[in-house]
Amino acid sequence: MKLNEKRIEQRLSKLSEFTIPGSPWTRRAFTEPYARARDWLEHEMTIAGLTTRIDHGGNLIGTLPGTNHALGSLASGSHIDTVVDGGRYDGILGVVAALETAQSMKENNYQPHHNIEVIDFLSEEPSDYGISCIGSRAMSGNLSSDHLQYTNASGEKLHEAIRRAGGTPEKIQNACRSKNELAGFVELHIEQGRVLESNTKKIGVVTNIVGIKRFEMIITGRSDHSGTTPMNLRQDALVGASKIIERVNTQAKEYQTTNGYLVATIGAIHVRPNAVNAVPGEVRLTLEVRSDKQDWLDHFPEQLITFATKACETERLQIKSRQLSYMHLTDCADLVIQTITRSANTLDLSSMTMPSGAGHDSVFMAQLCPTGMLFIPCLDGRSHCPEESITMEDAINGANVLAQSILSLDQRVEK
Amino acid sequence: MKLNEKRIEQRLSKLSEFTIPGSPWTRRAFTEPYARARDWLEHEMTIAGLTTRIDHGGNLIGTLPGTNHALGSLASGSHIDTVVDGGRYDGILGVVAALETAQSMKENNYQPHHNIEVIDFLSEEPSDYGISCIGSRAMSGNLSSDHLQYTNASGEKLHEAIRRAGGTPEKIQNACRSKNELAGFVELHIEQGRVLESNTKKIGVVTNIVGIKRFEMIITGRSDHSGTTPMNLRQDALVGASKIIERVNTQAKEYQTTNGYLVATIGAIHVRPNAVNAVPGEVRLTLEVRSDKQDWLDHFPEQLITFATKACETERLQIKSRQLSYMHLTDCADLVIQTITRSANTLDLSSMTMPSGAGHDSVFMAQLCPTGMLFIPCLDGRSHCPEESITMEDAINGANVLAQSILSLDQRVEK
Repeated sequence: MKLNEKRIEQRLSKLSEFTIPGSPWTRRAFTEPYARARDWLEHEMTIAGLTTRIDHGGNLIGTLPGTNHALGSLASGSHIDTVVDGGRYDGILGVVAALETAQSMKENNYQPHHNIEVIDFLSEEPSDYGISCIGSRAMSGNLSSDHLQYTNASGEKLHEAIRRAGGTPEKIQNACRSKNELAGFVELHIEQGRVLESNTKKIGVVTNIVGIKRFEMIITGRSDHSGTTPMNLRQDALVGASKIIERVNTQAKEYQTTNGYLVATIGAIHVRPNAVNAVPGEVRLTLEVRSDKQDWLDHFPEQLITFATKACETERLQIKSRQLSYMHLTDCADLVIQTITRSANTLDLSSMTMPSGAGHDSVFMAQLCPTGMLFIPCLDGRSHCPEESITMEDAINGANVLAQSILSLDQRVEK
Repeated sequence: MKLNEKRIEQRLSKLSEFTIPGSPWTRRAFTEPYARARDWLEHEMTIAGLTTRIDHGGNLIGTLPGTNHALGSLASGSHIDTVVDGGRYDGILGVVAALETAQSMKENNYQPHHNIEVIDFLSEEPSDYGISCIGSRAMSGNLSSDHLQYTNASGEKLHEAIRRAGGTPEKIQNACRSKNELAGFVELHIEQGRVLESNTKKIGVVTNIVGIKRFEMIITGRSDHSGTTPMNLRQDALVGASKIIERVNTQAKEYQTTNGYLVATIGAIHVRPNAVNAVPGEVRLTLEVRSDKQDWLDHFPEQLITFATKACETERLQIKSRQLSYMHLTDCADLVIQTITRSANTLDLSSMTMPSGAGHDSVFMAQLCPTGMLFIPCLDGRSHCPEESITMEDAINGANVLAQSILSLDQRVEK
C-alpha cells in the first residue's frame, strides 16, 4: 500500500503552524490555536472519507468502517497539543500518519476487516489543569470526578474545559471503551532521545513504557551568617544535597546495563534562603526514577534514600522523603512488538527494540487492548523545544511502518 | 566610672521598638520607623548633654567636648537600621553603649581630653539602593558620585534618600573627615556567630575584619528530557555543581586551622529549567570566600576554580567564573586591640581575640584612624533574624568594656 508522502509532509507543516505566533511551537490544549487545529484536522478526516466524532472525553475520532464490527477497532493516533515553546513534531506525527494510513486504505480500495480509528487524544502533555493524558485517561476509565474539579490558573475547572473541547464531562464514564471494542492500538511518535541516533537505527520498536516514581526530599540544616559561622559549626543543607545529587548520578550509572533501562534525575532544587551571604538552611529536591524493570524501580529509590539518610546524619542534617507520584510500568503487547518489527524488516528499515523513557497515551490504551509504539529518530534527541527536528525521510519511514503494521494486524483474522 | 545599667536596658528596649509593627524587627534605613527612631535618638543625645548634628553623609553625631581639640575626637558608635525581619540588638547595642559612655562621663563630671563623638552611621545594612555602610563610606571618602545615582525599587535615587535623612549629598565630599580630626574609633557589636558561646568567653576582641571575595560560576550542560536521555548521554549541570559545592566545603575545612580564619560558602543556586522531568542544563552558583589572611583570600578561589574547571571537563560541562566583588581585609589597630583586652581584664571579664567574619562600619573608619571592635555573645549565634537574642548581663559587660576602653584611650595623652 503506497502512502501519499507529499500529503504527509504538507499536513505536518500545516498542522504545526497552528501555534501562538510569537512562540512557535505552542499549541496548548484548550486554547484558541488548538481549537482551530482541531477544526482543520476534523475537516481533513472528513475529506479522507472518515466519519468523525468527539467522544465524551473530548477525543477527536475519525473512523473508516471495517467489514466485521464484531472484531472491534484497530486504533492509531497520538496528540496535537504541545508544551509551551515545544517541538514541531511531538504528537502530530502520530496523528498525521494514522490519518494517512486510513486514507490510503480508502484510496487503495482496501476495505479493512476491523474498523480503523484515527484518534487525536485530548491534552496528552501536562495540561494547565495539573494532569496529562486527559483524553486517554478518559477513554480507559482513568479520569476521575476528582480530576474533573482540577482548575487552571484562571480558576476554570477541567470539566468546563473538556466541554469547551466538545466533550461531555457529565458522561465521562461513558467515554471509557470496553475491552472488546478495541482489537489493538499502535502509536507512532518521535523518540525524544538519542538512542536511535547513536545506534544509527531507523525504527525503534518499543517494548515497554517505563514506570516513573517521583519523590520530594526536604533536607533541613540551619541557616547561618556565612561570615560569622566557622565551617565546623555549620549545618549546610546544600552540602548534604550535593552528596545526594552525586549519588543519584553514580548509582544510576551502576544500574545501567544491557539488561535494563534506568534513568534517575534530580531535576529541581529550591534552596532557602538562597542568598550569597547565608549558609543554606533548607533544600528541597525532586528525585525522579524511571525504569523498565519493576525491581529496579522499587530498589533504586530505597537504596538512594538509605544513602541520603546516612549522608545527612553525617552532616548533622535532617531529611524527609515522600513519594509524589507513581506511574506504573507498561509492557507493550508481544503481538504488536512482533508486528512492528516484521513490518520494518519487510520495508528494509533497520530497527531495534527499546523502552520508551517518556510517557504516552499508549500507557492508558494498553489497559484496554494489545498496544505498541514505534519511534523514529529526532535530531540530536532534542524534544519539547523549538530545536526539535526530524527528516521527512524518517517521518515517511515511520508512517510506512505504521501503515504496514496496521495492515498486518487487520489481516491476522484471515489466517 | 559607673554606667547606668537600667538606662542601657531601657534604651535598647525603646529603640528596638521603632519597627514595622507586623514584622519585628524591621527598621530599614530611610523609612518612617527609622526616621522616628533617629528623632528619638537625637533627643536622647541632647538630654545626655551632647551637641548633635547630622553630617553631609547623613550620619547622626552627638559630641561631648574635650579639653584639647587639637587631639582630635575619640569616636564610638554603630548603626540603628536593620535588615527585614532582623534582630533586636544588631547595631543598636553599639549606639546605646557609646551614648551611655559619653553621658556617664558627663554625669560623673569626667571631662575628657578628646572630644567624644557618639555616631549613628547611616544605613550600615545592605540598603534598598544596593549599597551598604552608606554613612561610614561617606565619612571615609568612599561614597562616590556614581553611588549617589543608585536607585531603589521605586526609582528614588540615593542622593534623594540621603537628603531625606538630613544629609547634604551635593557636599558629600565634605562628609569625609581628615585623619587628624579623629584619634580613634571603637565599636561594640553583637558577635552574630557562635565562637564566643562555644568558647564560653564574655568579650571578643576583634583583631581584624575579614576580606570578602564573591564570585559567580555559570555551569552549562545540556537540558534534556529526563525520561529519554540515558545516563551516559547526559551533560547534567547540577551534577557538576554538586561536585563544586562539596569541594568548597572540604577545601575550606582544610584551610581552617588555628593560624587563620577562612569560611567559604555556596549560598545561592539557580537551576534551569528546574523541572522534575528535565536534566538540568544550566546552574548558576555564588561562591563567597572570607578570610583574615590575604594569601588565603587569594589562593582559595584560585584553587577552587581550578578544581571546578577540571570537574566540569570530566562531566563534559562548560564553566565560566567571574569575580562579583572584593572587600579588602581590614586590620584593627594594635593600640585598640590591646586597650580592649586590658579593659576586659580590669573588669574581670574573660576575653579572646577573634576575627570578625561580618563586615561593619569599622571597615571604613579604619581608613581614618586607629580602629577596633569588641563583641559580646549572642544566643546560639543567631542574627539577622527575630530569634537574635543577648542577655542584659552581656550587654552591660560590653558597654562597660567599651567605656573603660574609651577612658583608657582618652587618658593615654597623660602618660
